[in-house]
Amino acid sequence: MFTSGKLRIVESVGEGVTDLQPGDHVLPIFTGECKDCRHCKSEESNMCDLLRINTDRGAMLHDGRTRFSKNGQPIYHFLGTSTFSEYTVVHVGSVAKINPQAPLDKVCVLSCGISTGLGATLNVAKPTKGSTVAIFGLGAVGLAAAEGARISGASRIIGVDLNANRFNDARKFGVTEFVNPKDYDKPVQQVIAEMTDGGVDRSVECTGNANAMISAFECVHDGWGVAVLVGVPNKDDAFKTHPVNLLNGRTLKGTFFGNYKPRSDIPGVVEKYMKKELELEKFITHEIPFSEINKAFDYMLRGESLRCIIRMEA
Amino acid sequence: MFTSGKLRIVESVGEGVTDLQPGDHVLPIFTGECKDCRHCKSEESNMCDLLRINTDRGAMLHDGRTRFSKNGQPIYHFLGTSTFSEYTVVHVGSVAKINPQAPLDKVCVLSCGISTGLGATLNVAKPTKGSTVAIFGLGAVGLAAAEGARISGASRIIGVDLNANRFNDARKFGVTEFVNPKDYDKPVQQVIAEMTDGGVDRSVECTGNANAMISAFECVHDGWGVAVLVGVPNKDDAFKTHPVNLLNGRTLKGTFFGNYKPRSDIPGVVEKYMKKELELEKFITHEIPFSEINKAFDYMLRGESLRCIIRMEA
Ligand SMILES: NC(=O)c1ccc[n+]([C@@H]2O[C@H](COP(=O)([O-])OP(=O)(O)OC[C@H]3O[C@@H](n4cnc5c(N)ncnc54)[C@H](O)[C@@H]3O)[C@@H](O)[C@H]2O)c1
Ligand SMILES: NC(=O)c1ccc[n+]([C@@H]2O[C@H](COP(=O)([O-])OP(=O)(O)OC[C@H]3O[C@@H](n4cnc5c(N)ncnc54)[C@H](O)[C@@H]3O)[C@@H](O)[C@H]2O)c1
Repeated sequence: MFTSGKLRIVESVGEGVTDLQPGDHVLPIFTGECKDCRHCKSEESNMCDLLRINTDRGAMLHDGRTRFSKNGQPIYHFLGTSTFSEYTVVHVGSVAKINPQAPLDKVCVLSCGISTGLGATLNVAKPTKGSTVAIFGLGAVGLAAAEGARISGASRIIGVDLNANRFNDARKFGVTEFVNPKDYDKPVQQVIAEMTDGGVDRSVECTGNANAMISAFECVHDGWGVAVLVGVPNKDDAFKTHPVNLLNGRTLKGTFFGNYKPRSDIPGVVEKYMKKELELEKFITHEIPFSEINKAFDYMLRGESLRCIIRMEA
Repeated sequence: MFTSGKLRIVESVGEGVTDLQPGDHVLPIFTGECKDCRHCKSEESNMCDLLRINTDRGAMLHDGRTRFSKNGQPIYHFLGTSTFSEYTVVHVGSVAKINPQAPLDKVCVLSCGISTGLGATLNVAKPTKGSTVAIFGLGAVGLAAAEGARISGASRIIGVDLNANRFNDARKFGVTEFVNPKDYDKPVQQVIAEMTDGGVDRSVECTGNANAMISAFECVHDGWGVAVLVGVPNKDDAFKTHPVNLLNGRTLKGTFFGNYKPRSDIPGVVEKYMKKELELEKFITHEIPFSEINKAFDYMLRGESLRCIIRMEA
């Protein structure tokens, strides 16, 4: 879920900040871009040394303290952004300045999963026109990955999910065929290999489940297949396969935030939306006022929503 | 070990063979190229559907029978080539026609491991100029991978082997630093990360040992590192890692025969040798007559030889 509202308009800037000024429209992003480290300077990486995704930091970088408190008790910052609030304090590297014409209650969804799924396909899996693509997990991230496959001109987009309710929505995102692993006695990678004469050209895993990661890898065609992991696993999960599956010419990759560099690349993704090359409305299934935020968690946990917008000003 | 001699000159061709004629010089290769299947037609794959590496086939493709026998008992073909002999019978897709000026007792080593290691670096890992590269296993395959890194202009080539005797030879192949995992209490991937400010840009695994495969993957830098598996594992080995090592921007690949398409690409590798862009002599540590072939096995098993040439005509 994503909050829209004042939080996405710069209220004031700290000392030394020259890239932004009050009134700028911005998207706060969970994995930042300092523009100065080896990762930011590399064309290939978005894993900024200073501001990369970090669930434990909880404080401001330079003084290790928080900017929020209640009755003298610190309230810790979340993922460098803390966006369930009307105002927040973020590092300049954690916000992307965007076109002020863009509707904030739509483009706010580009701050996380939608960009992640889209970029996982467009920037990492890179299917060519006519390719076959399998998407594991048809939540918002997987559907954004499917959208990327559709934009790339994939000929077949095979959606895999344990929740058959996901299949209806998925058609809108270009998914052409569905596989529910529960419907088969054999491993889903084998089912997909049989459907596709040996395997798909690309797969993108968006479940966070370690078995799905293995299936997503093993269902790509030998010789040229590329699998991309996106789902966030548990601490003691493992990816496991027989090495010959790699020697046979398969490639395994993974990505945070779809390899987009937030400040450099996200303004361009917003432009794609403005030019109607990318549709965001279909990802937004619910909209509620902040006072009802717990409903948004319920929708999410029950797998009923894709993305829910929380209106701060309501 | 490799045999040199008549076996590498076409004696006669079967019906319908138009690409070759008697007198042509050829290299027999364990993984063939039919030029007709989807793999052969793909620019990315050398895993020919018809003639890919197969240790079990043992017979000619079209009639399932052997061309060798002794006292009426069939002698099975090995890897489509059967080269420990004066004459052999092979599928036209399993031989690469090469420059007849090339000395067969040198270029014969391009039929397997040397091309494999070289191609694993040049065609798959693709280090850019100035990169850091780790090579796991400093047998002939690993040294050829190091040679590829040297040709690519790598700034540091770190050789990893459990056998310290390998380190002397390795300097000739461009290896600049050595790590023996036995010298440390911590995992070798950690040792390498500490030597290189977070990991190498590329690694190539040439041991066949599953733990070395895991180390070779985990020692590449997050954000952009690429690891390539080359060693042939055992049937029940597994590659295992935490998925976050992939999400962090690492890539894992593998290859047979260094992704070279034997008939299309190996003639060009022979030309590199003829133009002195590639040195093969340093891989050839021993040369013996066929009557002493068992000595060649001993050298290999004791890790004393890189490549040993067996002279059929001696
Ligand atoms: N890498 C990143 O930068 C990044 C960014 C955002 C989200 N994520 C991760 O992406 C994943 C998907 O996010 P989402 O918001 O779409 O979640 P979601 O819960 O809405 O969707 C996940 C879907 O996967 C399905 N699923 C679960 N296990 C499965 C299995 N074994 N086989 C097939 N389908 C299975 C579920 O039924 C569900 O429909 C999560 O793990 C999330 O943490 C990663
Ligand atoms: N993929 C292919 O197409 C292909 C082609 C040819 C050979 N191979 C394989 O490549 C591998 C190397 O071949 P070679 O002829 O150079 O073999 P080799 O035996 O001469 O060299 C292997 C080296 O690896 C070292 N080693 C073993 N375990 C290790 C570990 N855990 N850590 C570090 N070093 C370790 C050994 O000490 C040895 O020096 C073999 O597995 C072979 O089967 C693959």
